[in-house]
Amino acid sequence: MKPVQVGLLGIGTVGSGVFNVLSRNQEEIQRRAGRGIEITMVADLDTARAEAIVGGRCKVVKDAREVLANPDIDIVIELIGGYGIARQLMLEAIDRGKHVVTANKALLAVHGTEIFEAAHRKGVMVAFEAAVAGGIPIIKALREGLTANRIEWIAGIINGTTNFILSEMRDKGLDFDAALKDAQKLGYAEADPTFDIEGVDAAHKATIMSAIAFGIRVQFDKAYVEGITKLAAQDIRYAEQLGYRIKLLGITKRTDQGIELRVHPALVPARRLIANVEGAMNAVLVQADAVGTTLYYGKGAGSEPTASAVIADLVDITRLHTADAAHRVPHLAFQPDQMSDQQVLPMSEVVTSYYLRVRVADQAGVLAKIAGLLANAGISIDAMIQREAGEGEKQTDLILLTHTVREGTMNEVLAQMQALPTVLAPITRIRKEELA
Amino acid sequence: MKPVQVGLLGIGTVGSGVFNVLSRNQEEIQRRAGRGIEITMVADLDTARAEAIVGGRCKVVKDAREVLANPDIDIVIELIGGYGIARQLMLEAIDRGKHVVTANKALLAVHGTEIFEAAHRKGVMVAFEAAVAGGIPIIKALREGLTANRIEWIAGIINGTTNFILSEMRDKGLDFDAALKDAQKLGYAEADPTFDIEGVDAAHKATIMSAIAFGIRVQFDKAYVEGITKLAAQDIRYAEQLGYRIKLLGITKRTDQGIELRVHPALVPARRLIANVEGAMNAVLVQADAVGTTLYYGKGAGSEPTASAVIADLVDITRLHTADAAHRVPHLAFQPDQMSDQQVLPMSEVVTSYYLRVRVADQAGVLAKIAGLLANAGISIDAMIQREAGEGEKQTDLILLTHTVREGTMNEVLAQMQALPTVLAPITRIRKEELA
Repeated sequence: MKPVQVGLLGIGTVGSGVFNVLSRNQEEIQRRAGRGIEITMVADLDTARAEAIVGGRCKVVKDAREVLANPDIDIVIELIGGYGIARQLMLEAIDRGKHVVTANKALLAVHGTEIFEAAHRKGVMVAFEAAVAGGIPIIKALREGLTANRIEWIAGIINGTTNFILSEMRDKGLDFDAALKDAQKLGYAEADPTFDIEGVDAAHKATIMSAIAFGIRVQFDKAYVEGITKLAAQDIRYAEQLGYRIKLLGITKRTDQGIELRVHPALVPARRLIANVEGAMNAVLVQADAVGTTLYYGKGAGSEPTASAVIADLVDITRLHTADAAHRVPHLAFQPDQMSDQQVLPMSEVVTSYYLRVRVADQAGVLAKIAGLLANAGISIDAMIQREAGEGEKQTDLILLTHTVREGTMNEVLAQMQALPTVLAPITRIRKEELA
Repeated sequence: MKPVQVGLLGIGTVGSGVFNVLSRNQEEIQRRAGRGIEITMVADLDTARAEAIVGGRCKVVKDAREVLANPDIDIVIELIGGYGIARQLMLEAIDRGKHVVTANKALLAVHGTEIFEAAHRKGVMVAFEAAVAGGIPIIKALREGLTANRIEWIAGIINGTTNFILSEMRDKGLDFDAALKDAQKLGYAEADPTFDIEGVDAAHKATIMSAIAFGIRVQFDKAYVEGITKLAAQDIRYAEQLGYRIKLLGITKRTDQGIELRVHPALVPARRLIANVEGAMNAVLVQADAVGTTLYYGKGAGSEPTASAVIADLVDITRLHTADAAHRVPHLAFQPDQMSDQQVLPMSEVVTSYYLRVRVADQAGVLAKIAGLLANAGISIDAMIQREAGEGEKQTDLILLTHTVREGTMNEVLAQMQALPTVLAPITRIRKEELA
């Protein structure tokens, strides 16, 4: 059987990984797929770099539309990234009846509905294993491995840059800014790290997982997104004393009220496996009614790990592209006519527990006031540390862990607490997730 | 579309889980599969128990062959277990053109070649996600998620009973016999725990993974199998002092000489995630050339976790049973005509490193003798502890960690060491795996 012909749009870090792995493991991949898979055309604005990578083994063009116009190309890999031209090219590829493989989480989280609808109409597949957690086959696990289950929640370390920074902060007692500089020096953070450190990248991935887990439309615009830029070394230290680690989590959860979708730093019990995921590694924890807890761990980024996911999608498509659409796995796990229109809840409706660090005057009655405000709102205290004030110091830190409460209620109490004359600095609030 | 009709052979722990989850999550499963999936017939020798479980919702028969003879049944779930009647019934089901889903690791590890060949001839699918690591979708990850990769090795905690016992031994300082009794009391070990504690169950699962990872035939008869019955509390303690945990691992590895396939207790660095998998949980670590290390964690046994895997297979088959065979994933990951005839290596050819505990006379020159034997064979010592002999004690323990060496060479050195007059008891040898 003649090989499946693939066109590659964008041959940067991931694209060159795809090209190299596909050629290195060609024989092994064909033994699995039952058919050869060949990249026959590459489009990249930097044709010189592209030529250097492909070394004459396939045609290089500058204009991506030349690839789309080639009737011999069965599958297009989109690795351009972003919401602009990538969206346009993907829709054109679909319109021309080509299957698409992409690692573009931003595009799918924002324009996924439009793209999957277009693909459904045209009867083509849009595969995106590489869009979430790099090389970890988490999309496959959620979409196919756990089909028996009612998924309850997902919590993932799905951004390697921030996990690396948090690991550094803990290991070396660094503050955020210093750890970010280290990460940039070592190539774990980009020159402009905004998307990573502000939680946007993790929110894109969490959005995609929420759609697959619960059969809802992608709702990135409703996600709550908070990054790690305000974390202080001392919070990591206090958390440690209380038996917790701080991780940036992407969380999506089904509740009676609606779907939670949020990215923020969170205290996680140190004894949980996911709390021990260090450096740039990713891990996704899934709670489902039949199977219970499962966890998926691996490299969430990088050239070859991401290429591993892209190529797995190529093999899946190679197997199924001549099959009837009913034989294929639906894009968002649920059949298109079986999607639910459940909405993502506003953050004020989320119920979770909290870590609070309150800078207070070291004087009688302060704790009673604070405890009173919490009690009035029905919030129980789970644990507390009061740092002993140093000789001559007039201030100290009060660290509180609370039981679960609606975020809206907590916001009100925090405003009251902040207004106390004995509270001397902005209160630090970090959410706490037991993940059990 | 009319529902897919399923016949269930054996409604014990897992079977009732399948029945219950399928009926509880019926709507959610159908929204994914695009078609209803219904168990319409159950065969079990204990018809009264079966009737009590199904509660009139489907037909119960005593004779499994009535299920096979029913032309309306599309898929047969085999949950009888064992090599005997289960094999016969599975082959008959295949012969009648029915797809089969099974959790029967023993049968596949021993008779897999015969069964998969029969299925291939008849054009039916035999699905077995539930046969390895219960609810963890590891078969799917290996067979579909990692298709881009040349898999290098797999190391798994794939028997919950033994992991529970090892966790108890470490937590409570118990010896094997006491921990086994605890496990039996708590329902984590069966009255006759032989298959679990002797490593046979883990070897069945490792055999299946080796076939899928490397495209070789199932070779259970060539697997090296060693259980945990000889582990002593003190070895767990010494390992801990050296920074290791002891786990029963199922390992399969590709080397230039051939395929390694072995189950035995092993020291694993305590900082590895897999070393921290406690209690009855399972985890499988996979090393592959493009993606690097990935890990899959979850419940490896139990009614509903195993049912989760069985039902995922039902959904896959429901999607693909009317598709052309070329659209399906090959049983052992590689196309049937692309299997390799690589052989499993004899254990003497395996290269690994070792933990040795040697009971020696507390006198001058003993260590020099032992170190000399190792040096003569070219084996380097990586770390050593010599326990201080107690007041009046004439014996002590020498604990050695070695660098890697061929097992055959180590066996020779151990025989020489054992023959020394200053070595006072049988030497304890536990393999050590760095898993990096």
